[in-house]
Amino acid sequence: MTQHIDVFKLPCKGPADLSAAQALLDAGLLRAQDIVAVLGKTEGNGCVNDFTRDYATRAWCDLLAPHLGISSTAVHARVALVMSGGTEGVLAPHFTVFARRHDDAAAGANKRLAVGVAFTRDFLPEELGRLAQVRATQDAVRSAMADAGIEDASDVHFVQIKCPLLTAEKIRAAQERGVDTVTHDTYESMGASRAASALGVACALGEIDASTLRDEHIQRDWSLYSTVASTSSGIELDNNVLVVLGMSRHARSDYVIAHGQMRDAIDVAGVRHCLRDNFGIDPDTQAALLRERFVNVFAKAEASPDGQLRGARHTMLNDSDINATRHARAAVGAALASVLGDTALYVSGGAEHQGPAGGGPFALIMKAQDSDTSN
Amino acid sequence: MTQHIDVFKLPCKGPADLSAAQALLDAGLLRAQDIVAVLGKTEGNGCVNDFTRDYATRAWCDLLAPHLGISSTAVHARVALVMSGGTEGVLAPHFTVFARRHDDAAAGANKRLAVGVAFTRDFLPEELGRLAQVRATQDAVRSAMADAGIEDASDVHFVQIKCPLLTAEKIRAAQERGVDTVTHDTYESMGASRAASALGVACALGEIDASTLRDEHIQRDWSLYSTVASTSSGIELDNNVLVVLGMSRHARSDYVIAHGQMRDAIDVAGVRHCLRDNFGIDPDTQAALLRERFVNVFAKAEASPDGQLRGARHTMLNDSDINATRHARAAVGAALASVLGDTALYVSGGAEHQGPAGGGPFALIMKAQDSDTSN
Amino acid sequence: MTQHIDVFKLPCKGPADLSAAQALLDAGLLRAQDIVAVLGKTEGNGCVNDFTRDYATRAWCDLLAPHLGISSTAVHARVALVMSGGTEGVLAPHFTVFARRHDDAAAGANKRLAVGVAFTRDFLPEELGRLAQVRATQDAVRSAMADAGIEDASDVHFVQIKCPLLTAEKIRAAQERGVDTVTHDTYESMGASRAASALGVACALGEIDASTLRDEHIQRDWSLYSTVASTSSGIELDNNVLVVLGMSRHARSDYVIAHGQMRDAIDVAGVRHCLRDNFGIDPDTQAALLRERFVNVFAKAEASPDGQLRGARHTMLNDSDINATRHARAAVGAALASVLGDTALYVSGGAEHQGPAGGGPFALIMKAQDSDTSN
Amino acid sequence: MTQHIDVFKLPCKGPADLSAAQALLDAGLLRAQDIVAVLGKTEGNGCVNDFTRDYATRAWCDLLAPHLGISSTAVHARVALVMSGGTEGVLAPHFTVFARRHDDAAAGANKRLAVGVAFTRDFLPEELGRLAQVRATQDAVRSAMADAGIEDASDVHFVQIKCPLLTAEKIRAAQERGVDTVTHDTYESMGASRAASALGVACALGEIDASTLRDEHIQRDWSLYSTVASTSSGIELDNNVLVVLGMSRHARSDYVIAHGQMRDAIDVAGVRHCLRDNFGIDPDTQAALLRERFVNVFAKAEASPDGQLRGARHTMLNDSDINATRHARAAVGAALASVLGDTALYVSGGAEHQGPAGGGPFALIMKAQDSDTSN
Repeated sequence: MTQHIDVFKLPCKGPADLSAAQALLDAGLLRAQDIVAVLGKTEGNGCVNDFTRDYATRAWCDLLAPHLGISSTAVHARVALVMSGGTEGVLAPHFTVFARRHDDAAAGANKRLAVGVAFTRDFLPEELGRLAQVRATQDAVRSAMADAGIEDASDVHFVQIKCPLLTAEKIRAAQERGVDTVTHDTYESMGASRAASALGVACALGEIDASTLRDEHIQRDWSLYSTVASTSSGIELDNNVLVVLGMSRHARSDYVIAHGQMRDAIDVAGVRHCLRDNFGIDPDTQAALLRERFVNVFAKAEASPDGQLRGARHTMLNDSDINATRHARAAVGAALASVLGDTALYVSGGAEHQGPAGGGPFALIMKAQDSDTSN
Repeated sequence: MTQHIDVFKLPCKGPADLSAAQALLDAGLLRAQDIVAVLGKTEGNGCVNDFTRDYATRAWCDLLAPHLGISSTAVHARVALVMSGGTEGVLAPHFTVFARRHDDAAAGANKRLAVGVAFTRDFLPEELGRLAQVRATQDAVRSAMADAGIEDASDVHFVQIKCPLLTAEKIRAAQERGVDTVTHDTYESMGASRAASALGVACALGEIDASTLRDEHIQRDWSLYSTVASTSSGIELDNNVLVVLGMSRHARSDYVIAHGQMRDAIDVAGVRHCLRDNFGIDPDTQAALLRERFVNVFAKAEASPDGQLRGARHTMLNDSDINATRHARAAVGAALASVLGDTALYVSGGAEHQGPAGGGPFALIMKAQDSDTSN
Repeated sequence: MTQHIDVFKLPCKGPADLSAAQALLDAGLLRAQDIVAVLGKTEGNGCVNDFTRDYATRAWCDLLAPHLGISSTAVHARVALVMSGGTEGVLAPHFTVFARRHDDAAAGANKRLAVGVAFTRDFLPEELGRLAQVRATQDAVRSAMADAGIEDASDVHFVQIKCPLLTAEKIRAAQERGVDTVTHDTYESMGASRAASALGVACALGEIDASTLRDEHIQRDWSLYSTVASTSSGIELDNNVLVVLGMSRHARSDYVIAHGQMRDAIDVAGVRHCLRDNFGIDPDTQAALLRERFVNVFAKAEASPDGQLRGARHTMLNDSDINATRHARAAVGAALASVLGDTALYVSGGAEHQGPAGGGPFALIMKAQDSDTSN
Repeated sequence: MTQHIDVFKLPCKGPADLSAAQALLDAGLLRAQDIVAVLGKTEGNGCVNDFTRDYATRAWCDLLAPHLGISSTAVHARVALVMSGGTEGVLAPHFTVFARRHDDAAAGANKRLAVGVAFTRDFLPEELGRLAQVRATQDAVRSAMADAGIEDASDVHFVQIKCPLLTAEKIRAAQERGVDTVTHDTYESMGASRAASALGVACALGEIDASTLRDEHIQRDWSLYSTVASTSSGIELDNNVLVVLGMSRHARSDYVIAHGQMRDAIDVAGVRHCLRDNFGIDPDTQAALLRERFVNVFAKAEASPDGQLRGARHTMLNDSDINATRHARAAVGAALASVLGDTALYVSGGAEHQGPAGGGPFALIMKAQDSDTSN
């Protein structure tokens, strides 16, 4: 069995505008039953009260339900709908759709982009940001790898996770049951949930020693991190939803993926190297080729927690008008766009335990060429 | 008479932290009476109620007044204190101090950085954003060029202007006199004042035809612009304060300046070309040399007024939580920092009639080398 | 024919949480086909990029469509869905549902609450904020009065209008057709649309002289206003939707309505008088009775345009972090809640030409008693 | 020895506008050496990066220093300068100046307003929000009572404290010394510092049992609170500054003070009762008398931590665009202003351990009359 992956990047006029997807479905270029994951950037604040994520998710469920012959709610258990809020600065709202078909054709000589999804159980409020969330995520990463046909951890290039956050209601509910949540601040809970989820990836891929990890390390020991995790929290779900992107000999898609690290929010050297080393593209002199082959970048952004960047002070952590995640998305989004020449990028905020402190992982999906050395 | 220019870029811990300047004064490395201009980036919202600009200005006045033997208030008429609010994203708050001495030494063979300042009269509320402000600015540019010893418009590389805005009080005062202001919205008045000031520069330098300019062109006809104007409005003043930066045969400083355009908020190609063509530096392979020679960049940022960037939608103009100028500064600041490797950059918001719509001018100040071709 | 009106005030856990309505429908307490209007307060920013209004509207359409046997989109033309964004301060998100049945029973001796709705055609971008919008609204008010069975303008106690705003896309579209919109600022367009709509009400009810009204009066001559208009703009529609609330001899509901004015944002004396004079309730000593009879208040909030309130300066108009409408809703909402003892109030921002400058109209819906003198 | 207290409420045009104070000094109506405390409301965001507090404080130091013959910095140790940021909604920026003279005249028959101040030592970052801050505050309350000539805790009607917060820099500094701060979130540190300071007041006045208080109670056990504490944190200081307001037989001022509680953010019944019971004023029917006698109210505002208000949901704690303290100040300020008919009120955000959860203490300063029963 071979999997064939298609990737579509679709613009939108608002969180619920799926006219581009509708057009593909109408034209027969995309089949609803093939869609395994949608990774969207929506134009909310990306923080606690960002309802654009939920709104977009609902629109996707409503669009797909009649095609799949299931209820709108049941779509959640069938397709990984991961919406990341916040298109600060130059970022353009958009959706990246991953479609997958299996057939009996022989796979090609080279590894190609493969996609797998998995879902954890719903979490209790008090589990968020703690080991319970780490362990459930760790198990789900392995399920998603199996789903993708990826055997080796080194072939995993990106693990996107959507995870829950705490609302005032959830915190109160836990307190009424006599248990305490990891924080009483709703915005802060977003970071805790992202952190535990990222460490779950690191455990699953052997990047850190799962057996010695303790609650106290979460959001404290920044030396522990995954180089491929990207986690993003939202008010619209109670469990973790995972999408694993990697390379597989069992995949026959026209796409390839590679990844790297940004050491800090302005470090685009890694992206330039990744383009050159893996795809033979110099973004300065081969802008047309880049435009032709580039599909999307998936990247994490965060304000460096020590308040410093290349020796100078940044003000993101002290700003009470604009949350730090919003500043960081604006900065990383523009830095990446200035290299890639495209603003419809998946840049997601809050990189706790995702790459080094202040930096973050990125993954590039490109159209495949025979000469690619990323295989 | 030859002018000798020194440039100091000073970090700060807050809008009123001038400890770095104090240290230079104490050490005798900087003389208060030589300071002709301070261009600062302060960490407010950069919009109407940004008091960090005023706070920093007051701190500078208080610092310099005893050295100059004048009152704190009188410093305003002696030194061009231009504070630009907003250090969104990675930007680091800092001050760039320009000091100037005249002596009888012979100038060098090459043109070097020269600085000149000028001040317009105070404006009436109803003059802001209209031809009256344009004309007064036009005259002041010529005064500042003379002050800098720059004869030719082509030697002007940057004209930084600080201009007033309308407050609710000013608007009411005008109405009580029976005259109407260009807008009733305080935030919008910032754009109007920046626009008229920029057109004043364009008129002075012959970039547009001053004789045909009318009120209706201001903030309407974006084909009219200056390639070297940078205007920034603030609540703390009632007149325009101008700083002209250029190259002059009468200057003997260790610094040089060159300028270029960003076509849009992510267009860093012009900066890369400017570094290579004028200073022989490749930012990718010569990061150490760049770090050694780079002093600062002065750049304008704005959200493209048509809501589009490279064919994709941006959301800056529809965001009622964060003003568009804040988004744009975050984006342009990060894009520039990703090339220059430094975050203490002077990026100022609102580029009406400053460079092409959606883009803006930039000027690079570098330490001089004999091989510089920018002369 | 007699109309029977029911009014339900429903709490919600989020913009799309209609579980309270679902429960009423399931219990047979509310019939979908009777619903003529829903006036909701949703928890967005109430400004341009507030998608919670659209999200709530969509949820209502999805809920009602199968009951009505029509498509989700067709619900818009059948039910007046008016969502007002912004629950700043103490305000609680909620929906007020108006249901209407007609039967042949004889009406009671007293006038009772009546409801009528109407819709204008879609507006072109350049019509917003101008006389074209005024005239279309004026006609629609008369249609809605007829629909409500209200013959006399003095029996109209509240006219709620939902009106469109300009987005960057709409402005550009107009410009491409060679016409100009009333403003280029999206946030400012909200005020222009509210202003023209309110003047349409004033014209329809004879509060101002329709024949002499000109474009230049809109948002300029604050002496022209309606004492019962409440207009609120949103991104989710292209026409004006009107709900007229008043008293009619043809209505048999258990509800009554009365209205009054707030002279400024803290003027609750009018509300206290309205409670006492129309309903015989002293809110201080009869809190239990008030709680029993009070249904909802519909009120407009705005920052006084001269920047002053009772002789002191307010800072709402100079705040570039929080828009003035948000400040005003927080203030008026809390002032009203402190009298009414309830926070689920319909307080909507931006009272241009709705009551005196800085103040605004309010209407109280109460459960009817035989002793009511408001009839 | 008898103390004579004067109270001046001064408007301002901006954080540093002290022209009203200057006029009093010039006219001899106020002597700089008599000023013991200034309680200001400034128009910043009231959160971490609110530099208007610092700016106002600096302006006061600069104004008073030459009159006192000391340096500007030394004024901090001589006058309690307490600036509370945030004038959301209708609130008007202003300063309340307390001046005190001692003479040998006999005190009057009745107790009158007395004022005392005290200062703690500077705190280490890790002491904030913990018992060390509680204990130092407890001692300082007793010093301030002695300074005010107040012997009995029941004569203390308000204790205003300005306390420090954690910045990213302070947190890092502590970590570098191997110690951890109570939180890593700068905005959250404001609450921790306010909470510990309030419990220090409660301990000093015997409102709670000081001997059993532990670190774990702070910001957890909301049953522990002071009914007269008002604490407010700011970036501009490293120690606690205290102002005790009460009634004393040794005071001869023309002012009196009384206090009460708001049970929640809209509970103005207590204020109405306080006006009637202590001063014989009905705010509805005696508005002119109220206007004549009212000086200021000092009140605390907070979003109820359980997300509920009178049984309905509020959205203040889930709002990532506007911090909850800003919402709460807007609401409480408007509710109080609607009773008092004045918007220049001292409403300060964050009422942790200050009155019951979701509510807060208030104190009214009125001009004295012989008939006052508050003595």
